[in-house]
Amino acid sequence: MECQLICTQCGKRYAFGEPRLRCDGCREPLEAIYGALRAEVKDQGSILRRFKAFYPFGEVSETMSLGEGATPLIPSSVLGRRWGIDALYFKDETQNPTWSFKDRGTFCGIQYAISLGYERIGTVSTGNMAASVAAYGAKAGLATFILVSAGIPAEKIKPIAVYGPHLIRVEGDYHELYDESLRAGDRHGIYFINSDAPFRVEGSKTIAFEICEQLHFQVPDYVIIPVSSGGNFRGILKGFEEFKSAGLINGIPKLIAVQAEGCAPIAEAFERRREKVRRVRNPKTIARAIENPYPPSGNQVLRKLKENGGLALTVSDEEILDAQNLMGQEGIFGQPAACAPLAATKRLISNGYLKPRDRIVLVITGAGLKVPSSLNHLDVPVISTSIGGLTEAIGKVIEGPC
Amino acid sequence: MECQLICTQCGKRYAFGEPRLRCDGCREPLEAIYGALRAEVKDQGSILRRFKAFYPFGEVSETMSLGEGATPLIPSSVLGRRWGIDALYFKDETQNPTWSFKDRGTFCGIQYAISLGYERIGTVSTGNMAASVAAYGAKAGLATFILVSAGIPAEKIKPIAVYGPHLIRVEGDYHELYDESLRAGDRHGIYFINSDAPFRVEGSKTIAFEICEQLHFQVPDYVIIPVSSGGNFRGILKGFEEFKSAGLINGIPKLIAVQAEGCAPIAEAFERRREKVRRVRNPKTIARAIENPYPPSGNQVLRKLKENGGLALTVSDEEILDAQNLMGQEGIFGQPAACAPLAATKRLISNGYLKPRDRIVLVITGAGLKVPSSLNHLDVPVISTSIGGLTEAIGKVIEGPC
Repeated sequence: MECQLICTQCGKRYAFGEPRLRCDGCREPLEAIYGALRAEVKDQGSILRRFKAFYPFGEVSETMSLGEGATPLIPSSVLGRRWGIDALYFKDETQNPTWSFKDRGTFCGIQYAISLGYERIGTVSTGNMAASVAAYGAKAGLATFILVSAGIPAEKIKPIAVYGPHLIRVEGDYHELYDESLRAGDRHGIYFINSDAPFRVEGSKTIAFEICEQLHFQVPDYVIIPVSSGGNFRGILKGFEEFKSAGLINGIPKLIAVQAEGCAPIAEAFERRREKVRRVRNPKTIARAIENPYPPSGNQVLRKLKENGGLALTVSDEEILDAQNLMGQEGIFGQPAACAPLAATKRLISNGYLKPRDRIVLVITGAGLKVPSSLNHLDVPVISTSIGGLTEAIGKVIEGPC
Repeated sequence: MECQLICTQCGKRYAFGEPRLRCDGCREPLEAIYGALRAEVKDQGSILRRFKAFYPFGEVSETMSLGEGATPLIPSSVLGRRWGIDALYFKDETQNPTWSFKDRGTFCGIQYAISLGYERIGTVSTGNMAASVAAYGAKAGLATFILVSAGIPAEKIKPIAVYGPHLIRVEGDYHELYDESLRAGDRHGIYFINSDAPFRVEGSKTIAFEICEQLHFQVPDYVIIPVSSGGNFRGILKGFEEFKSAGLINGIPKLIAVQAEGCAPIAEAFERRREKVRRVRNPKTIARAIENPYPPSGNQVLRKLKENGGLALTVSDEEILDAQNLMGQEGIFGQPAACAPLAATKRLISNGYLKPRDRIVLVITGAGLKVPSSLNHLDVPVISTSIGGLTEAIGKVIEGPC
């Protein structure tokens, strides 16, 4: 299918095959656009094969797939009933190959890199994206460069290192590092699949495609998404827009962008009706995966929120940890960032923004096991007994006040 | 469909609805058996709905599902080629709701418990099974009792506690605890979905069903499985047997049971041609998930291995950790137990048991993130640089000896 890249701000167009991630004029992110979309979805294969009509790749090589996507949309059993919401769903992205949503974008980004002839890929990340790019780089047999901040502790590096990438610790400002990585990539023929690379965003749109399929092509009223760089938010919205444009659905849900109080450049700009995000000086939140102080797709998220009629808001670390426990009651264990949508939902139900008949989808972006320290606060009431005392101890629990 | 439970040793039969896990005569595990099986597989729904023809449940309640199963069968990209094996596959059970294969059996076991009218469930475990039962118990709104050994550290308890079960630490022998849990369960109306509960085993058979589908109903030559209690091994074999009996496949793969050198009651009995497992006195392996010193299904695994023509063998902790690194090169990060099949594969290729034309499936039972300490040994070569020095640093890596 015909594809061009377009600047999300000025509309300048670039040919398919353009390796850059940003407009050379206004430095805003680029986005893939297509001609007329066919309403064609296949039953079998990877996300890129199933939704082939929405991608420019020709025949996709399945050998690079680790089984990304095809995650469940889990209807709430507990909280929806408790809060009086009829249709509350969790899109569980923790069931991906490296246990976060990043795998969709990495798989898609690697297809683009390979279609351009790259034999080296990389990313700037210390978290979910680093593990994902390292895993897919290994699988595809590509030299893989993971650039991490100097301060990252060994415990965070090892679950990335297990995939065998080249790990480079870089001293200095993380945001400058993003730009410098692109220059180093130009020089050395490395395609950096950073957070808002156009074809990483193209991967995220399959989250929306699957939600549509799983709801039998009925459009949800709200989709609630933790937002950091803004790439995943953009991708999900783009997915709904493309399915609508292909005639597969007849509306677009309102999107709700959730950020942490301690790092909320997008939510802050949204509330103050500014058109541009401003850099957050001392970001600090337990939800490290959404702690981007100067999100590269921030301005585009603001533009799209306005058009979409959606909302951006913040939740506190305390609300996030409370939401982590609440989500455990649904049988889902999310990392702090992944619990931000539930924290927002609780608030938006209590203030009446969300209504009992709304159909609400929460995107659970990454697994709780990624951040075991987020459970440090957890108060664990453990009963101790001997084997001989077991039956009695259980009896007490059953009769007890809890 | 008509279903009975049968003692795996003496053949004594029990009615469907029998809560016990063991034969009251010989204390061997019970197994579900059916009348004629229909070769019917559905496209949509949970594993129990898709393979409904192989279960006795009538209409299955999907509300208890967390999206278990439907895991990818990933063809090797790297190691198969390196080792000269044409068809090497990883069945990636880490992409389950609580990131291990246990979720299949828990989902199935809960259906049985609920069909019997239980409102309380439990298990004896400190690892994958505990997290799985706690998650599904929460989802199903059942009071859930998790019995753990007294020595278990808080870090291991918290990822179980997040789902909100009743946690009971029990002082004393772990094996006695298994038996005592069943007595306490009888007394208090708790269905214990322990490691070889008949309907936990019934859940595991969907691993085999999916492998068959994913290989387009061509039977693999070998399926290699880490073995602890023996329940998962029994379930996978039963799945192949049932698909054959339904006419969906025309043979049964040879099954290879892998244990750790430091705790190998089944492999040891197999090698010495004994019919019964003997209890291992001081079990010690990094692969804690397969460290069951006296596996409840051990004797049945031995009987089935004989009939199947399969093999049991041990691998060392060193081989397991080496395999963990090797599997990282395929983009898959397994917990130590999950890497035992790859360690065995490497050995069985080098000694000529496995041949280039064999079609080999490895069952990757649980996620590496479950046991972060298994990466303590990992030597991580990290390059350090400043932002200004990044391009040069990458250049050195590219030109360098690696």
